[in-house]
Amino acid sequence: MWPQQRVSVLVKSVPKLLKRGDIAGVQRLIAGFRPADLANVFRRLDKAHFKAYFDAIEPLAVRAEVLGELDRDIARGLLPEVVDDDLLKLLREMSSDDAADTLELVPEERAQALLQALQQAGEEEVVELFDHDPESAAGLMTRDFFALPESVTSAEAIRTLQSQSEDFEFSYYVYVVNDAGQLVGVVSLRQLVLSPSEKPLREIMATDLVSVPAGTDQEDVARLVARYNLMAIPVVDHTHKLVGVITVDDIIDVIRLEATEDILKMAGAGEELEQASMWRSVRVRLPWLMASFLGGLTAATFMRSYEDAIAQVAPLASFIPIVLGMGGNVGTQSATVVTRGLALGRIDVKQLVEVVRDQVLIGLMSGLCYGVLLGMVAWGLYHGSSMIESAAYLGLTVALGICASMLIAATMGGLVPMLMARFNADPALASGPFVTTTTDMLGVLCYFAIASALLGL
Amino acid sequence: MWPQQRVSVLVKSVPKLLKRGDIAGVQRLIAGFRPADLANVFRRLDKAHFKAYFDAIEPLAVRAEVLGELDRDIARGLLPEVVDDDLLKLLREMSSDDAADTLELVPEERAQALLQALQQAGEEEVVELFDHDPESAAGLMTRDFFALPESVTSAEAIRTLQSQSEDFEFSYYVYVVNDAGQLVGVVSLRQLVLSPSEKPLREIMATDLVSVPAGTDQEDVARLVARYNLMAIPVVDHTHKLVGVITVDDIIDVIRLEATEDILKMAGAGEELEQASMWRSVRVRLPWLMASFLGGLTAATFMRSYEDAIAQVAPLASFIPIVLGMGGNVGTQSATVVTRGLALGRIDVKQLVEVVRDQVLIGLMSGLCYGVLLGMVAWGLYHGSSMIESAAYLGLTVALGICASMLIAATMGGLVPMLMARFNADPALASGPFVTTTTDMLGVLCYFAIASALLGL
Repeated sequence: MWPQQRVSVLVKSVPKLLKRGDIAGVQRLIAGFRPADLANVFRRLDKAHFKAYFDAIEPLAVRAEVLGELDRDIARGLLPEVVDDDLLKLLREMSSDDAADTLELVPEERAQALLQALQQAGEEEVVELFDHDPESAAGLMTRDFFALPESVTSAEAIRTLQSQSEDFEFSYYVYVVNDAGQLVGVVSLRQLVLSPSEKPLREIMATDLVSVPAGTDQEDVARLVARYNLMAIPVVDHTHKLVGVITVDDIIDVIRLEATEDILKMAGAGEELEQASMWRSVRVRLPWLMASFLGGLTAATFMRSYEDAIAQVAPLASFIPIVLGMGGNVGTQSATVVTRGLALGRIDVKQLVEVVRDQVLIGLMSGLCYGVLLGMVAWGLYHGSSMIESAAYLGLTVALGICASMLIAATMGGLVPMLMARFNADPALASGPFVTTTTDMLGVLCYFAIASALLGL
Repeated sequence: MWPQQRVSVLVKSVPKLLKRGDIAGVQRLIAGFRPADLANVFRRLDKAHFKAYFDAIEPLAVRAEVLGELDRDIARGLLPEVVDDDLLKLLREMSSDDAADTLELVPEERAQALLQALQQAGEEEVVELFDHDPESAAGLMTRDFFALPESVTSAEAIRTLQSQSEDFEFSYYVYVVNDAGQLVGVVSLRQLVLSPSEKPLREIMATDLVSVPAGTDQEDVARLVARYNLMAIPVVDHTHKLVGVITVDDIIDVIRLEATEDILKMAGAGEELEQASMWRSVRVRLPWLMASFLGGLTAATFMRSYEDAIAQVAPLASFIPIVLGMGGNVGTQSATVVTRGLALGRIDVKQLVEVVRDQVLIGLMSGLCYGVLLGMVAWGLYHGSSMIESAAYLGLTVALGICASMLIAATMGGLVPMLMARFNADPALASGPFVTTTTDMLGVLCYFAIASALLGL
């Protein structure tokens, strides 16, 4: 059986076995699977079965890895059921960065008690990591890295590596530090193997390595790793002392997470994917919808003053959905292109004028195309109709209306994310609901202003 | 100066120097920068300066790496200006996967001529890679990997590695093959260094390694690498023969690219980010907007039959923007959450019923909340107004209208991407414009049906 099919059997069978209370069956089934696959099973389990399944995972080292792989909302559901003694054993087994991340998910008081116990057990690294912002380089890094002084020879380095073999997450790189602990170079394991055994690291190491300060935002770290094709990136403090290492697997998680966050934020669905219950989904969405609600209400208020006009020329109302809908779509396109361009570093914050100019022109061109089209359709539909005196003027009104709406929308779609980025706010946050709402309001206003002027209402 | 500041000086200064024709100045400035940084500069250059800047990059090896790092649209602009002889030298210098990717960007006839020349020069690997689907595992893999038979000892393996040191992109893993060339195991360089020198690889290697068939879609490859925290993944053919290796840096590019594609597709902006000119942006967007245009037109046609009703009760028109806008926003939220869940593997295609049920309930709950709110506001606004006979009925109409619109939108937002995924189409493609357009049409229809029933029009 192809491995992925075995995984899908696993995901389906464990819940059934647990419902029957067949723990021995679960243990037989899960033997030989990787921690990441075992962690995936939780997504299809009732919360009531979390603990029984978790306890069925043997040995302790695998259980600790599974804990490190869990989605945050699942871990938050499981951890209250794990007693302190067991959790302590698991934390000691985990790599320091995973342990610190896990402690972020328990209540502050419990975390402090566990940290104290870890410190007494000599696991200072977790304690040091716990204080950092989880979205910074320091929050991502592991303290279990391999660093040696510059004077060590290549043969000594290999001997040291051999004697400490089990302690490091990933040791493709050996970092080289000076007497003050400052990062001065890097040697890959391959270079080490290839070098004459008596050569000191000083003479083998590459010195133009990329490193990041501990406070760097995780998105910037990810951008550097992606740009320079790195397998790991060292983290330094303000004195350039080496304090940790971030491996590329953690960077992959960051890239996926940030892309998801951006996508959901643009749609105004916040952190919904993490939420387990439907009530929480609704609660995440409602505030975003409020922006749209208030925008729509403002539009309705504008329109109140045109109600006499609508009563006279009812066909005007028929074109409201298309005028606003086309604006909304163009606005979303512009906002998305600009926001994603900013996220990928393809657009620079300083290019505000160029970016907005491009979007204005795109909005204008698209608006003219569809304006002409809609104008002709409207004229065709109402030519000779009793509802309206001049179908030509109606056609001109909707043509100009849709053109204005698309121009406004594309402009806002370019302008809003660029301004957000300029003022160090997250461009993704504003884009979706804010742009469509503004477009709805201004679009309605323009449409009726044009109608008043042209149809003499 | 912090490295990132140096990069930003580079990006700003090169265009200025090129305008002045100061090639020597460019060469002084760019010395010591990494290929990825040098490649980035192209994004801010006039196409007219591409060739002059490219030629200024020395030595050939760096220039070849820069070529491998270029955005596709930029490479397409540059390559016609590079003569065949130079391009051939560059291709021979590049890793086999980068060379094959570069050949995808030149016209078929030129690619075939270059491939022939490469074959004569003994670079069969590029020729083999060129035929593969660029979005499959085979299209991503490099042929420059390090594989040894199972009987080789650890000391021999290290010696072989030392003698062939420059030929491999990344050699943290040594792959182990049997006599038929089939993949049987993997040894990390670290395990190699740690093992007694006379032990054969057969006894050191891990055998439960993750591999992918050559035809696997790149998104699935990326998911495996992310799930199992791999640094590289081997590619096998249908006989399980090892044919290539994909390194994690290429996977990072895939993850970023796929996220971007999904985001742009959801907004109906296709591959716009890759496009250099504004005319192309407009051309990419126009067909998507057509869906929205036809939807809006259908809504306008529905509304024609209600124009008498609108003339009687003009306030009905005032609430069209809010009724449709709220629906559109909820629909986008649902479509986004479901599409992203599918992309991340958090939602399974088979969960159609559960996913749609959740979205229906979310739509209904949000609809009730905002329906009650809008109903009360409408009643308050029109209470005692001369425009309408019964403000209470108007309130009820808009309340039910917004509720119906939000329910329809959330349902479509859940249903459409799930159905797309079920029929192996890309869920991201449908989500944005399709969901909002359907919502606009059905929303208008429901709103006026409710109005007719309640207000007796």
